[in-house]
Amino acid sequence: MVWGKEIARNLYGLTGDMRIQYLDISDEGHLILKIGNHEIDLYELITKNDLPGAHIRILPLIRKMMVQVVEVFIRAMKKHNSKLGFIPIYPLKSNSSKIVIDTIWSHGEKYNWGFNIGTIPEAELISNYSNKKPRLLVVDGVKDKAFIEKLIDMKNNWEIIVDIESERDVEILKEYPELKIGIRIKLLSTTRSPWSKSSGLYSKFGISLIDFENIIDKYEYLYDRSVLLHVHAGSQIPSLEDLDKIIGETVSIYTYLRKIGLDNLTYIDFGGGLAYPYTHFKKGSGFSPDYTLEEYAELIVEKTMGLEKFDAKIVFEGGRYIVAPHRITVSKVIDVRPYGARPRIYEDVGYGIIDEIRKAGNLKELNNVLRKIREVITRLTSRTEASKENRILLEKLITSIEYEVSKKIEELFSRMRLDEFIEYIKYPSPLLEYLITPSMRVFVSFSVFNHIPDKIVVDQYFQVVPLSRLLKKPEILAILSDLTCDSMGEYGDFYSYVEKPFKEKLIPLDLLTSTDKKLLYVPNMLVKLNGIPLHIPRKGEKYYLAFLETGAYQDMLGMNHNMLSGYPEILIDIIDGQLKIKVVNKSYASKYPV
Amino acid sequence: MVWGKEIARNLYGLTGDMRIQYLDISDEGHLILKIGNHEIDLYELITKNDLPGAHIRILPLIRKMMVQVVEVFIRAMKKHNSKLGFIPIYPLKSNSSKIVIDTIWSHGEKYNWGFNIGTIPEAELISNYSNKKPRLLVVDGVKDKAFIEKLIDMKNNWEIIVDIESERDVEILKEYPELKIGIRIKLLSTTRSPWSKSSGLYSKFGISLIDFENIIDKYEYLYDRSVLLHVHAGSQIPSLEDLDKIIGETVSIYTYLRKIGLDNLTYIDFGGGLAYPYTHFKKGSGFSPDYTLEEYAELIVEKTMGLEKFDAKIVFEGGRYIVAPHRITVSKVIDVRPYGARPRIYEDVGYGIIDEIRKAGNLKELNNVLRKIREVITRLTSRTEASKENRILLEKLITSIEYEVSKKIEELFSRMRLDEFIEYIKYPSPLLEYLITPSMRVFVSFSVFNHIPDKIVVDQYFQVVPLSRLLKKPEILAILSDLTCDSMGEYGDFYSYVEKPFKEKLIPLDLLTSTDKKLLYVPNMLVKLNGIPLHIPRKGEKYYLAFLETGAYQDMLGMNHNMLSGYPEILIDIIDGQLKIKVVNKSYASKYPV
Repeated sequence: MVWGKEIARNLYGLTGDMRIQYLDISDEGHLILKIGNHEIDLYELITKNDLPGAHIRILPLIRKMMVQVVEVFIRAMKKHNSKLGFIPIYPLKSNSSKIVIDTIWSHGEKYNWGFNIGTIPEAELISNYSNKKPRLLVVDGVKDKAFIEKLIDMKNNWEIIVDIESERDVEILKEYPELKIGIRIKLLSTTRSPWSKSSGLYSKFGISLIDFENIIDKYEYLYDRSVLLHVHAGSQIPSLEDLDKIIGETVSIYTYLRKIGLDNLTYIDFGGGLAYPYTHFKKGSGFSPDYTLEEYAELIVEKTMGLEKFDAKIVFEGGRYIVAPHRITVSKVIDVRPYGARPRIYEDVGYGIIDEIRKAGNLKELNNVLRKIREVITRLTSRTEASKENRILLEKLITSIEYEVSKKIEELFSRMRLDEFIEYIKYPSPLLEYLITPSMRVFVSFSVFNHIPDKIVVDQYFQVVPLSRLLKKPEILAILSDLTCDSMGEYGDFYSYVEKPFKEKLIPLDLLTSTDKKLLYVPNMLVKLNGIPLHIPRKGEKYYLAFLETGAYQDMLGMNHNMLSGYPEILIDIIDGQLKIKVVNKSYASKYPV
Repeated sequence: MVWGKEIARNLYGLTGDMRIQYLDISDEGHLILKIGNHEIDLYELITKNDLPGAHIRILPLIRKMMVQVVEVFIRAMKKHNSKLGFIPIYPLKSNSSKIVIDTIWSHGEKYNWGFNIGTIPEAELISNYSNKKPRLLVVDGVKDKAFIEKLIDMKNNWEIIVDIESERDVEILKEYPELKIGIRIKLLSTTRSPWSKSSGLYSKFGISLIDFENIIDKYEYLYDRSVLLHVHAGSQIPSLEDLDKIIGETVSIYTYLRKIGLDNLTYIDFGGGLAYPYTHFKKGSGFSPDYTLEEYAELIVEKTMGLEKFDAKIVFEGGRYIVAPHRITVSKVIDVRPYGARPRIYEDVGYGIIDEIRKAGNLKELNNVLRKIREVITRLTSRTEASKENRILLEKLITSIEYEVSKKIEELFSRMRLDEFIEYIKYPSPLLEYLITPSMRVFVSFSVFNHIPDKIVVDQYFQVVPLSRLLKKPEILAILSDLTCDSMGEYGDFYSYVEKPFKEKLIPLDLLTSTDKKLLYVPNMLVKLNGIPLHIPRKGEKYYLAFLETGAYQDMLGMNHNMLSGYPEILIDIIDGQLKIKVVNKSYASKYPV
């Protein structure tokens, strides 16, 4: 059986540009965190603290992302000899947990890292921070007088720019000449972001250019006070081609506004959009962008080259990218159940279909039988059959079928060559569907609604990795169920992409889980599995799963379904070269079974 | 112009069986609440308290729903001469706000109303309630020893039944002989509920019948201690046909379990599923069931008639139905902006298409031009055109088109007969699409993510009704935007169904909004509009919108996006015949602009 650290790293997505920097597998098969010169065994960390689960917050990762962004942009500007200014700001909406803001605030000192807020409570929160050297604060969202007056109170400690998006905004801000103005313009270009409705003429945010022209005719103060152009085309933009359009349009709008006389308009804020790579491969989907941070920075720098004459300054508004990796959610597996019913054999079900499975001599024949089975079961369960006396017979039929199919698959695969096998599963078929369907249901001590709400909100992908037994081949494909009484509280998404060519000669069974014979991977091919490759916890064994990169938005969107909210937290930091680990919110543990 | 109270009631969905009982329009055109003999003007209530918005909680409506359920079931049982027991229980997951539980607890005294919980914090909460006469407490969800021991502490005050769903559960419960057992079985029948994955063999909850049979062979204690059969096919089941299957299957499972010797199994808990009618018409969709409470009760009573010999008792687990109507969320409109850009005319855009609109002599010709326009705009905005110098030209083209189209529509409609008009808009066409698309974007002082999260989670429909000017014909069709920085924070769903035939002779313009000439309704035809029919607030006017029936799940699922959570609440109650109104959580108001 071919299995090892290298395949495990590949299968569980630890090979991406980003993850390779901070995650690895130990010689004991545990997931380890690499921070500076330190290595932390995450399995030991969580079991030692005996918790049902926790958010592990790795503060040095926030700093790492900040530094990376600045360095990559500066490198791109040097390369192109761009003389533009560069100012990073952090939008509170991505994560306004105190510890996150504190970290960005302190580490942002040397970069003069600014902030972006959009609501009154965000203004309240950020007003607790202040500096001798004022930092940029870009304020968007819907305003009223109370909101603006809150900003007036802060004006000595911050360089405040307030966006206008409507005539009402312009009317309110007329009364506060001490505040600088940002102009939030609607982009016409659209993207394939999950938040694609953020751009286009009919998007929620911003004002059209011609409506702005009409307003500026009426409110001449805007000529002087406007200092920033702000656009936002949606979070997590998947393709460089989309970004190219957006940045191009923004530059064109900027040039136009300078031409019509907004002489103080020096800041260009390109808004959010830089996608965080939630997968270890580039796919150009909402969760795996087809570009890198380097390419993003190059694009902006190149497109803005002509703006030096305007003394322009690029504002980078990265939220998700900065905070996504810093939180890893770790949860205990507490019960393992069959996905449907446990496959077993009933000789007496009396349907010819069992014989047909047994007789299948090759994959093609098995595929035909599987197609037929699907029809039979759909027909029996969608009609009223289930409500009649043969209800138990129906279950016996299904479990017998599952038993026979899994036996047959093992038999057929064990006498095939790898290339034959791959040829068969390259294309959609009932067999492939069978192979990527979980056989088990694993209950995990967490709430999808509270801990990874974006699974519910935008069907977001989160990489799942077991904390232990990584040097053992996964035994089963399992769907994860949470503690809520809601059938949406499930997680079974797994992108399998094992790129490395192995020296070892593979046989088909190497590509399958060891117990339920489901698909693990096909070398060099991207396969979406409908379950997570896992091990079955042995009696008394503590088995935990990590959900990676839950640091952006998940803290803010967490729901209180079935009163499950909050989670213990393990804070990891490095202070003066020393590793500091602290457990907080431990009392939340009592809400979750172990 | 034909408009009046009757049309307003119809358009805003105040004619449904449910809403007609507690909502109406006053002679001033305000939305009023009718509770007992009291009438409360909701517009006055909110403006008097000068709030950006509030959840109005009407506690007598919870009681009303409780009484209705009991009475309808008792009536159905009398009619069929059924001798079965009937026990209602309330699942905490639907809404575990203290005030809701308190209300159900107190009013449930005379009906011996029980509860259903599924997590440790829910057990903590319900343990605060206790009675001399123990009420039924059905416990599902994932258990551990600590959870069970919490229940043991409560065993003198509650009649506790703990569901088993896996061998682990059976193993744990073996040690606690004092607890009665419920058996949660998987249904094979599936439904068209938005939570359809709650049933079927591969659903999250329950154990298959044959897995249960295997377990009972090993754990004989289950024969004696099992007292309840529990199923759950998903919330909000849309069709009576689906319910028929589910109830039939449940009865068949129950009969089977009695046959194999579970002699103490007397309770049958049919789980959730009774759909609350979120619309005023029956559609058989996830939010408008094709049946009534009466039909639901009749179905259960009829299907369980054969179970008298088992001394069976029906457990009704209604959550959503009981609490949905008690909360009305009311929010202030604070800014009105164009949906795209304000339509206006630019003579110089230099595209022949404007002329084509002007020349259209009838709806058919206009339709053809509209089809062409759509292609042109899609082409221009999806390519890189927007990023070039003609960016502003593109906006001018679009706004000119919108201006000309709206003028042309008014011209054509004003010389048509009603039947001609209806014939044209019966079927999908670019014209119909134009007519149901909003022209304005209205910012409302609330958060979709916090106040109506199910819009995000399951695309739920909530009826929107203005609190004032209901005797004036709506002026515009508008999409509602919330305060978050998220493009998903929008609401524009409106089912228009005006059933009443009017005595007045209608002309096409009667069916359109008065300002932007968008579609309001077509008599006797269900039309889904993509915006809400509203009025434009005049300068200084306070204009509020109500979102009806936000009482189930929305309190639990509320997210903290952009730190917007919580809302002032106005509690309405009747105590000893006296109307009591109390404002609580007023401090939350400062988070929201006015």
